[in-house]
Amino acid sequence: MAPDTEIIAGYEVYTPEAAAELKSTESSQKGRPYHPLDQLTVTEIIEVAEIVTSTFSKNSLKFNVITLKDPIKAEYIAWRDGVGPKPERQAFVIVLMDGGCQVNEILVSLPRKSILAQRTIDDVMPILTLEDLDVCERVARADPGVIQACKDIGIHDMNEVYFDGWAVGADERYGFDRRLQQGLAYWRSSENDNQYAHPLDFCMVIDTEREEVLRIDIRRVDGKRVPVPRKSHNFLPEFISDGYITDRLKPIDVTQPKGVSFTMNGNELSWAGYKMHIGFNYREGIVISDVSVDDMYEKRRRMIFNRLSVAEMVVPYGNPDLPHHRKHAFDIGEYGMGLMTNPLKAGCDCKGAIKYLDAVMSTSRGYAAVLPNAVCIHEEDNGLLYKHTDYRDGTVVSARDRKLIISQIITAANYEYGFYHTFSLDGTYKLEVKLTGILNTVPLARGESATPHGTQVAEGLNAHNHQHLFSLRVDPALDGPNNSVVQNDAVSTDIPVGQAGNLYGNAFHCKKTLLKTSKQAACDYNHETSRTWDIINPNKLNPACKKPIGYKIISRESPGLLCRPGSLVWRRAGFTRHTLWVTKYREDELFPAGNYVCQSTGQPGWPYNETVVDWAARDDNIENDDIVCWLQFGITHFPRTEDFPLMPAEPLSVMLRASNFFEKNPALWVPPTSVDKDNSSRDLNKCCGGGGSRPVVTDRSGAAPKL
Amino acid sequence: MAPDTEIIAGYEVYTPEAAAELKSTESSQKGRPYHPLDQLTVTEIIEVAEIVTSTFSKNSLKFNVITLKDPIKAEYIAWRDGVGPKPERQAFVIVLMDGGCQVNEILVSLPRKSILAQRTIDDVMPILTLEDLDVCERVARADPGVIQACKDIGIHDMNEVYFDGWAVGADERYGFDRRLQQGLAYWRSSENDNQYAHPLDFCMVIDTEREEVLRIDIRRVDGKRVPVPRKSHNFLPEFISDGYITDRLKPIDVTQPKGVSFTMNGNELSWAGYKMHIGFNYREGIVISDVSVDDMYEKRRRMIFNRLSVAEMVVPYGNPDLPHHRKHAFDIGEYGMGLMTNPLKAGCDCKGAIKYLDAVMSTSRGYAAVLPNAVCIHEEDNGLLYKHTDYRDGTVVSARDRKLIISQIITAANYEYGFYHTFSLDGTYKLEVKLTGILNTVPLARGESATPHGTQVAEGLNAHNHQHLFSLRVDPALDGPNNSVVQNDAVSTDIPVGQAGNLYGNAFHCKKTLLKTSKQAACDYNHETSRTWDIINPNKLNPACKKPIGYKIISRESPGLLCRPGSLVWRRAGFTRHTLWVTKYREDELFPAGNYVCQSTGQPGWPYNETVVDWAARDDNIENDDIVCWLQFGITHFPRTEDFPLMPAEPLSVMLRASNFFEKNPALWVPPTSVDKDNSSRDLNKCCGGGGSRPVVTDRSGAAPKL
Repeated sequence: MAPDTEIIAGYEVYTPEAAAELKSTESSQKGRPYHPLDQLTVTEIIEVAEIVTSTFSKNSLKFNVITLKDPIKAEYIAWRDGVGPKPERQAFVIVLMDGGCQVNEILVSLPRKSILAQRTIDDVMPILTLEDLDVCERVARADPGVIQACKDIGIHDMNEVYFDGWAVGADERYGFDRRLQQGLAYWRSSENDNQYAHPLDFCMVIDTEREEVLRIDIRRVDGKRVPVPRKSHNFLPEFISDGYITDRLKPIDVTQPKGVSFTMNGNELSWAGYKMHIGFNYREGIVISDVSVDDMYEKRRRMIFNRLSVAEMVVPYGNPDLPHHRKHAFDIGEYGMGLMTNPLKAGCDCKGAIKYLDAVMSTSRGYAAVLPNAVCIHEEDNGLLYKHTDYRDGTVVSARDRKLIISQIITAANYEYGFYHTFSLDGTYKLEVKLTGILNTVPLARGESATPHGTQVAEGLNAHNHQHLFSLRVDPALDGPNNSVVQNDAVSTDIPVGQAGNLYGNAFHCKKTLLKTSKQAACDYNHETSRTWDIINPNKLNPACKKPIGYKIISRESPGLLCRPGSLVWRRAGFTRHTLWVTKYREDELFPAGNYVCQSTGQPGWPYNETVVDWAARDDNIENDDIVCWLQFGITHFPRTEDFPLMPAEPLSVMLRASNFFEKNPALWVPPTSVDKDNSSRDLNKCCGGGGSRPVVTDRSGAAPKL
Repeated sequence: MAPDTEIIAGYEVYTPEAAAELKSTESSQKGRPYHPLDQLTVTEIIEVAEIVTSTFSKNSLKFNVITLKDPIKAEYIAWRDGVGPKPERQAFVIVLMDGGCQVNEILVSLPRKSILAQRTIDDVMPILTLEDLDVCERVARADPGVIQACKDIGIHDMNEVYFDGWAVGADERYGFDRRLQQGLAYWRSSENDNQYAHPLDFCMVIDTEREEVLRIDIRRVDGKRVPVPRKSHNFLPEFISDGYITDRLKPIDVTQPKGVSFTMNGNELSWAGYKMHIGFNYREGIVISDVSVDDMYEKRRRMIFNRLSVAEMVVPYGNPDLPHHRKHAFDIGEYGMGLMTNPLKAGCDCKGAIKYLDAVMSTSRGYAAVLPNAVCIHEEDNGLLYKHTDYRDGTVVSARDRKLIISQIITAANYEYGFYHTFSLDGTYKLEVKLTGILNTVPLARGESATPHGTQVAEGLNAHNHQHLFSLRVDPALDGPNNSVVQNDAVSTDIPVGQAGNLYGNAFHCKKTLLKTSKQAACDYNHETSRTWDIINPNKLNPACKKPIGYKIISRESPGLLCRPGSLVWRRAGFTRHTLWVTKYREDELFPAGNYVCQSTGQPGWPYNETVVDWAARDDNIENDDIVCWLQFGITHFPRTEDFPLMPAEPLSVMLRASNFFEKNPALWVPPTSVDKDNSSRDLNKCCGGGGSRPVVTDRSGAAPKL
């Protein structure tokens, strides 16, 4: 049944009244209990907001975040393992009061309908919600200074000017007295015109709460304003119209006549021997918990990961001209990957039989906002799983691999990111990210060159060099809570050619280094040694190889941060300094650039805002302990003309692959698609023994060769 | 119509008589001329063999190779461009005479039915054909020494012993007087038992032509023989039987109700604006020539590549114990990727609507051998091509990518390799290789450890460390014959933080180094700088960015050779010493480890057997010239227990991506699958203004959350 709610930019908003009606139907839905990791429901969000509102009835409130408070790990695992009670359902709330920008953190108990804890925090700034970002355009369009800045370059209708609200980075001119945004300015020649073809030469700093423009930063060249690039570059159908070639590609239909291979019990998913829970929050978006697998050899269920999520990312731009140094978006910590998620549609974002999950966010008034189809779950054929032919007699066996993909796509102003959490039959978990959308552009003055810090993607349009750097948080639990990490380096054996032990010089081996403390575990990828890392359980030996069972981290697409050590970005995005961090598990250490990324300075040990750099500096033991791995990966992007006006999707990935975790190939249960045998021998001349005539095969004749 | 020919291990063999009947049907097929790059047909091979046989009628002949002689590049291109006559069709033949092993190279003109040139070459060895490899098992089983070696470890029935013939590497004990193979010995407990679970502790060196065992190398441990691992580890259905789980995976059907999107004119393929010719030969297998694209902006056809092929590969093993140092298979140069190709079957090796091409090989008697369905051509959906949402009003556009895949799968004794030449809509060519099949194994003595040079994949079974290193030969022709190569390194700008030009320390750029000579162009991948290389045409500027048009080489999966400098493998596999070589084009320089790889010593400048190391050492100009790029890529494989007894396919790839080649995104002609718009604003609280009741959406109620 299609909901009759008013859909607003993809969200369906529930007021308390609407939620009350929703709740009244619950009696007919009774029975299934919440899973402790399920996101808050519409009614829960409304309840939480009402508890907070009634407590602070004297204050005017602006809700920033209402989200599930993850249960304490030990309590949750006790419940999961059947040895403890179900953890209490709690919500974490951030609220701003009375027009201020001080963070108030509130912990609410849902069953007890009460506030369990509350604190105010100084010198941090909360995340910018979509509503906050909307302030930017509204305020800027009405600001006399901005209007004048537009007039001076020949733009007189402010309805033609658009402002993308961005986090400000960190601006030392204002500190934490103001909740800042920067507004990047663009012009459109018509309503649906691509504004990124017409960037303006200025941006503003605005105060989000007081709704005022604080400063207009104009990048003048030789003291002069830079003209608006007026030429349009579009990609929407109304502009391309008969530029489409409709007969070139015949349709490919993907169907699953017997349905999907996975089942869902609430948000617990079972597929091909895997089980996992799928959660979602405003910040990380998809959260995958309790990944376990049914082992055909040990004939039991084995834990792999406690929790997987994309915990942070940063996109630093490489142009040093002011104010471009401020462009280094932390899309997860500053804006929230959940909040920016697209509602998805079958046949465009994914193909085949698809199960969608909705996301439930909150609004500034404490209403619930449902984002339909926020998460897509589907399967894809994954090519060859295995194949072998006995060359003697042609006996063949082969099977096809399958993958389960749990995905979401976010829009971060101009850019889009697709996140595809992928499991395949050989025990591999791979996070693939696809980058598409539109390049961030700035105008070039006449005669000005885009190089070396950018590419001129069209006349007068400069797309700056940038990096996309992500952090995947992996809380492993390979056959139990205590794991270790070993670094693997492929090295030539250190014996000269011709000497005993290396007579022919071909000896090489895998040098293994156990990472014992979190300081040791701040490691970089090394191509020279094809470096990987194994997460192992030192307490459990693989019965075949007699080595600890493990999963291998493969992260080859992991450029280091190119901003120089000591720079603003290097300080704020400390997590990008290494390909790998391993920390000892502690409650509430979820976000490697800090809980409060907006306007963060990156100063070490900032109260309530520690980063993975701080956690690693504790130098905790990480050997045979409850650990968390932070995997950095990404890409350095020197824009190409092909990326304009709309980027072809560029994939990159990081992978965790079973490595001596299973006794043998874990996918031998997959029935082969082909088994064949030809029992004759392979003597190619045998057939000619009789010298008899051979039959004719027309299309192999000389005149019309098949090949 | 199914051919009535006798199929022998996948091949259909045509004697002269059979070919004559085939030829008699030509009259009904007339009209379509051969393309100069088409492989030899059945009748052509027979004709060539007859010309050679009649010329050398006094000799007993063993044909080693009968294949197309590629036309001289300048002549071919003149014809292709419509300014020269069609090149004469010629065959290249290698024949051994009178039981010897000296290489006789013969060039035959097909229209003139005559030998154009002939020469004998000393100190080189021809490729080992499948027929040659079969000699090994036959000879070994009958050899008294081998029989005794088996008896001594308790094996008395020689029909239970199997010998995989391998190239010998290089064995200084014999030089070029003998045509050598080594035989790796295995036991089977039943006819279809997996022999790689039962490796024996010895291997032999045999003389292929004289059919005799020259030497038996037994690897004794503490002076004692190593027992046969008797435990079976199987993967064929007859052994797994009820181990399959048939209800876990529901079928995924891929259909193309309107057929494929490509058309073929002979072996010339057209797809999505691309055109190319698909050839095939005994050695490189698939050869893709004349890749061009229809540019929607320049409104003309543009050349990209003259020729693409996988030109060599090597699989060195890292265990220094004799005789394992000999295990470093050059599967292309020593055995031939064409000869080892599998016949393919729809639904197992590929899915969807598939066009197969046959391959035509030759036999030792000079007969033609057709390998049906050697090449698979099909399309696949390739996920998101592009997507963008205007976050203001939810206007969305997205389209799906498509790929064209031209693939073959080879069996190299225990291993299989799938080669997938892939083109996608954004102008990318990607070669993906999938590794599957069975690990090479050796027995462990009681108490002996597999580490550090291998992994114990099962009790008593050691799978040695190894590398798979490939060489992709790219003959580029970006908008014309003369191209250059530029090395790209992502680097922080060299100005301290806080100084003019880098006030905030975020500046970075792409350092570009033009590679002027072939010595300069011997380059390695550098992860620190995310190194790539651009093949450019310096004579043609991109109209948007005003830089030379180009294609970017992305080769991140490119481990260096781990055998030490000076070692046997380092000498023989010189091509593996660098990620990139660029050489000036010269006729007949196709194979980077030399024309004759079997028993090659890797000595520089070997007559008739130069390698890419020799070509690079000429230090030719490669700037704005007719150049060839050699891209090395691969993987270092420390076996996992999961790889046994049958390896889950492991993918790796190398990529060439349009980089300022097109003025804009070259795929904007692709119709979007989704366009959507919601014109309302995005004020999440707007709906609540009226305070009216909201409709109920049952599955978002508290009781049964969708998420």
